Amino acid sequence: MSAPEIEQLIHLLAKLPSFGPRSARRAVLFLLNKKESHFDPLLTALKTVRDKIEACPICGNMDTTVPCAVCADATRNHGQICVVRDVADLWALERAGVFRGTYHVLGGVLSALDGVGPEDLRIADLIQKAATGSATEIILALPATIEGQTTAHYLTDRLKDFPVKISALSRGVPVGGELDYLDDGTLQMAFKSRRDVG
Amino acid sequence: MSAPEIEQLIHLLAKLPSFGPRSARRAVLFLLNKKESHFDPLLTALKTVRDKIEACPICGNMDTTVPCAVCADATRNHGQICVVRDVADLWALERAGVFRGTYHVLGGVLSALDGVGPEDLRIADLIQKAATGSATEIILALPATIEGQTTAHYLTDRLKDFPVKISALSRGVPVGGELDYLDDGTLQMAFKSRRDVG
Repeated sequence: MSAPEIEQLIHLLAKLPSFGPRSARRAVLFLLNKKESHFDPLLTALKTVRDKIEACPICGNMDTTVPCAVCADATRNHGQICVVRDVADLWALERAGVFRGTYHVLGGVLSALDGVGPEDLRIADLIQKAATGSATEIILALPATIEGQTTAHYLTDRLKDFPVKISALSRGVPVGGELDYLDDGTLQMAFKSRRDVG
Repeated sequence: MSAPEIEQLIHLLAKLPSFGPRSARRAVLFLLNKKESHFDPLLTALKTVRDKIEACPICGNMDTTVPCAVCADATRNHGQICVVRDVADLWALERAGVFRGTYHVLGGVLSALDGVGPEDLRIADLIQKAATGSATEIILALPATIEGQTTAHYLTDRLKDFPVKISALSRGVPVGGELDYLDDGTLQMAFKSRRDVG
């Protein structure tokens, strides 16, 4: 068995998503073999992120500034609010670079199975944004899963009495998608929402 | 895009074995969401391991003490030296708890493809241990791969003139192994080295 200090580190690393005890052990040995070139820069980067990054009180994004860079950007359309499940999805949309509005991170999706109810998500804040009239359009960019769509329906219902346009991402064949490899649900959806191109 | 501090951390994490950019991003968000319960303990554990763990100058094991706990243990047989590829393999044998001798970590195996020659491994140290007569048996516990076995042959050849017994782990059907699922090489080896049980 290795030293208790190493076992403790492996135990903590193994809790990270996509890590297990075996890969955590390999990562620790990798770092110990490259103390100067990898271990020290990683420690510094972790400490910086730990100390500097805060959740934005407006949208829930993670950034070094409060409010975050997106919410602080006056050139963005603050009336358009894109609702996402988590910060990873927000970053994915930012990487795609198609949206110039702002975001609202729910912090999850409704799930009876996992015991996640409306009060566990940042839904009250979103209703507030719609109620005060500061939002003109709310774009639901939630996962195309049962939970994601249940959440989208719930939000649509809660928001329907406010003077705000509600939209959702379109569904269909993804770019580069071979019809042969797509699931039946996607194909049915793509047929039902077919566009007029004539 | 997320803050440059986060991007830098993701970049460094993505270099760890079994991590890529996407899983590194998920790990960072996981930590940011659990600053007190996960991020802080992980930082402390990493710093402790970084500062306390050293490579043992005798065997190459990683431990908080110099020499390591295995080499410092007077109840172990210091004449029996088990040669392993890396520290992960040493720990695996220690977990199995079958061996009460000491180790010698090579730091890799010979590989023409990866440009690893004898001078890149801790082979001179091993020869030294055999030459001084401090070793009575050298057990080659190297991987059953082409590189591992090439290394084992090379070591056997280099050690053959010294008064030391050289052995290697046995080969055959692993515990719980269904013959139907084993590769041909293992089956051939298991047949060739069949034991007399009559």
